[in-house]
Amino acid sequence: PLASQKEVHSTSDEIVEIHANVDDQSGEGLGYAIERLMTAGAYDAYFTPIFMKKNRPAYQVTVITTSAKLQAMVDLLMTHTTTFGVRWATMKRATLPRTFKTVTTEFGEVTLKIGTFNAQQKVTVEYDSAAALADSHHVSLDAVRRVALLAYDKEDGMN
Amino acid sequence: PLASQKEVHSTSDEIVEIHANVDDQSGEGLGYAIERLMTAGAYDAYFTPIFMKKNRPAYQVTVITTSAKLQAMVDLLMTHTTTFGVRWATMKRATLPRTFKTVTTEFGEVTLKIGTFNAQQKVTVEYDSAAALADSHHVSLDAVRRVALLAYDKEDGMN
Amino acid sequence: PLASQKEVHSTSDEIVEIHANVDDQSGEGLGYAIERLMTAGAYDAYFTPIFMKKNRPAYQVTVITTSAKLQAMVDLLMTHTTTFGVRWATMKRATLPRTFKTVTTEFGEVTLKIGTFNAQQKVTVEYDSAAALADSHHVSLDAVRRVALLAYDKEDGMN
Amino acid sequence: PLASQKEVHSTSDEIVEIHANVDDQSGEGLGYAIERLMTAGAYDAYFTPIFMKKNRPAYQVTVITTSAKLQAMVDLLMTHTTTFGVRWATMKRATLPRTFKTVTTEFGEVTLKIGTFNAQQKVTVEYDSAAALADSHHVSLDAVRRVALLAYDKEDGMN
Amino acid sequence: PLASQKEVHSTSDEIVEIHANVDDQSGEGLGYAIERLMTAGAYDAYFTPIFMKKNRPAYQVTVITTSAKLQAMVDLLMTHTTTFGVRWATMKRATLPRTFKTVTTEFGEVTLKIGTFNAQQKVTVEYDSAAALADSHHVSLDAVRRVALLAYDKEDGMN
Amino acid sequence: PLASQKEVHSTSDEIVEIHANVDDQSGEGLGYAIERLMTAGAYDAYFTPIFMKKNRPAYQVTVITTSAKLQAMVDLLMTHTTTFGVRWATMKRATLPRTFKTVTTEFGEVTLKIGTFNAQQKVTVEYDSAAALADSHHVSLDAVRRVALLAYDKEDGMN
Ligand code: NI
Ligand code: NI
Ligand code: NI
Ligand code: NI
Ligand code: NI
Ligand code: NI
Ligand code: NI
Ligand code: NI
Ligand code: NI
Ligand code: NI
Ligand code: NI
Ligand code: NI
Repeated sequence: PLASQKEVHSTSDEIVEIHANVDDQSGEGLGYAIERLMTAGAYDAYFTPIFMKKNRPAYQVTVITTSAKLQAMVDLLMTHTTTFGVRWATMKRATLPRTFKTVTTEFGEVTLKIGTFNAQQKVTVEYDSAAALADSHHVSLDAVRRVALLAYDKEDGMN
Repeated sequence: PLASQKEVHSTSDEIVEIHANVDDQSGEGLGYAIERLMTAGAYDAYFTPIFMKKNRPAYQVTVITTSAKLQAMVDLLMTHTTTFGVRWATMKRATLPRTFKTVTTEFGEVTLKIGTFNAQQKVTVEYDSAAALADSHHVSLDAVRRVALLAYDKEDGMN
Repeated sequence: PLASQKEVHSTSDEIVEIHANVDDQSGEGLGYAIERLMTAGAYDAYFTPIFMKKNRPAYQVTVITTSAKLQAMVDLLMTHTTTFGVRWATMKRATLPRTFKTVTTEFGEVTLKIGTFNAQQKVTVEYDSAAALADSHHVSLDAVRRVALLAYDKEDGMN
Repeated sequence: PLASQKEVHSTSDEIVEIHANVDDQSGEGLGYAIERLMTAGAYDAYFTPIFMKKNRPAYQVTVITTSAKLQAMVDLLMTHTTTFGVRWATMKRATLPRTFKTVTTEFGEVTLKIGTFNAQQKVTVEYDSAAALADSHHVSLDAVRRVALLAYDKEDGMN
Repeated sequence: PLASQKEVHSTSDEIVEIHANVDDQSGEGLGYAIERLMTAGAYDAYFTPIFMKKNRPAYQVTVITTSAKLQAMVDLLMTHTTTFGVRWATMKRATLPRTFKTVTTEFGEVTLKIGTFNAQQKVTVEYDSAAALADSHHVSLDAVRRVALLAYDKEDGMN
Repeated sequence: PLASQKEVHSTSDEIVEIHANVDDQSGEGLGYAIERLMTAGAYDAYFTPIFMKKNRPAYQVTVITTSAKLQAMVDLLMTHTTTFGVRWATMKRATLPRTFKTVTTEFGEVTLKIGTFNAQQKVTVEYDSAAALADSHHVSLDAVRRVALLAYDKEDGMN
């Protein structure tokens, strides 16, 4: 196991889930909006396809954020989408404690995110580090992910 | 069995399937477009949610029509959607021979569409006649459908 | 700026979001249900495609309403969908203050909805007035929308 | 009407709705996860297609459960999906009182679920009993459903 | 590299893609239909959520099959869905040559499917063998997949 | 009207539509793949949510390209997605003749794409030029689009 890994238990906190329904804005405008929301620090911002009255294919925009950032996110939704109203509720949240670790592969260094849950480890390859290597070496993202997980397993893994 | 029912075998003909991807028009405008397409005689016109580059949620518009109406449908798509291009292909089609029959229920008369396939009958309640009765009697569409199928089964049905 | 426009700040109130999952009713029946819900005064009613156990493609029905109308909406869902259970939660809501204004275009009069947010105005073309003109003049909804926004900008707009 | 039917009014209780967004796991892994969740007693577990940042098509996993099973369901989500965090909220719920009844059809015995809502009955054919007969008699599920509803209507029905 | 692996080039053949739009059948019935289609040897059968006229959320059923099985698949669609018409077209297809290999893991034996593309190998863990081990050892499917890929990489892999 | 505008009629050519179904790759990997496909010159590349056997939520990847680029696109799909097979068909295509024009707004210069269809013009704001101004002036994309269309209408417009 990882010596440097902070072994804490699952924490429980709160997030705010904001919804807005949009049927009078194009996907192009919505794609721009999501970038503004993510740049401003939303935990997540995404679209769900929905079907509304009068045969309208539409999207529900959802933003996951903290209560501290609620007002800023509502402002961004009012500015960057065509909606005249947004709604939100507080939800409980549980997250895994996590550490980060860098492994060396034939393509270069890759960062892994390692969560601890019960006795098990949960390992995820960080997208940005893997995508950069996939780009420069002309291989698929999955090829980089696979060698990174292999490197991790050889070093610290399930042995 | 229905005396009046034309017992022919499944016929095979051709239709044209037209696709356009739209990421710069609102759902409101698309809902308007589908009405124009259906009014002009499309067999069907519908939206499929798709996800495109630059985080854009979008819709693929599909129109099912005949080769005789292809040009008119392309014109409607060019007029009523924001697309600068549409694509289409011819497909084979098989349809069931069908007859129509009216049954009397406690709510009023309902029209049924009856298809013949192998030895089996395929019975569908026509939406418009059933919806009108559901409206006027303040019951659900499914309640009307159910009594209509019951009336059919009592008269001609599976006995 | 609009002299007649009521300049109030964003208000905060509450709505109720009701969910029901439906995997044993057809789209035809669901389309009928949404009309009943909207006619009864739901703020919004819409479908989200979901995928359930046993390979079942299904729909989540969502209704946005007030707590005063909650019971009536639950009754409609129980009557017009096949669901045996619905769930709901209260959510906070923020809406923009809005005024309505009519502009004259080459196609006729169009109603605009104008929201105020920070120093900016948010202008939306009311669907029904624009769709009626698009129908009678055989142009696209977007063509009507565009001349209506142009008329607004010339009169009061961003000059 | 059914003598044996327990005529109680709609009850109101609470459920928990859990959400997790997953963009780094395959559909194959998610399909496995839903089986584990349903086997462990979730009322429902399903996927909603969502569209996220960086052009990522993804899925929101939702679990409907009781507060008593919340921790067990969160554990299953942490184990069987790649998510590092889940969120949940409590919702009110109303369900119809229901009874079960068996009817005899030409294909065999079929179980019906019968809800009571206002003066109306709501009848659903239980999937497992109907699917077994459809399998063994090589007919469609809808054919079995239809004769089962017909048998019910003849015995106790809307007469 | 795998000695036993048949190194053939990508082959090009033809498949038939069949479409049917269904708006008057429930998800439950559609879930049953897909099982009948897969059991009868469809390469694939799946649902796409679509949005149709009259506010109808619906599904497009697609079947991928050979021209030899076209008639049988059309028959199954006519029998097990409510559609009165299906359409199809022939498409070209390219598939990777593939071999199968069994590796031994701490959980038991897992089957891998190995494709060859250019100089690269493409390795997939066969679902059924991995799901059985995940079930019996109470771990996630991804945990089994990961040790299986690790075992493969140690034996034959990218070294 | 635009003096410089090339008034040609709608041309008809051919494109190739490629499909691949993916149920064993994550959204993260698919988001990476679409970037590779677009960079390599696909006309379009996008995801459609589909629902497959064994409760699997999945995605259909579609690429629109020319027959000249078919092989390159198939190679990219084989490399960057987990699919072992892709299918494709040729479709007819009609596109509007188009010109580009730059207008000056209070935020800076914006490029418009202008199509000609029958007697009507079809005007679209080019995303990249508008998004850059929205970023630097901290306004919404729609605000930039609106002033750009206004500038166009004042200069050359529908008068
Ligand atoms: Ni390198
Ligand atoms: Ni290079
Ligand atoms: Ni009547
Ligand atoms: Ni919700
Ligand atoms: Ni007029
Ligand atoms: Ni929710
Ligand atoms: Ni039997
Ligand atoms: Ni197709
Ligand atoms: Ni074992
Ligand atoms: Ni056990
Ligand atoms: Ni297609
Ligand atoms: Ni500037």
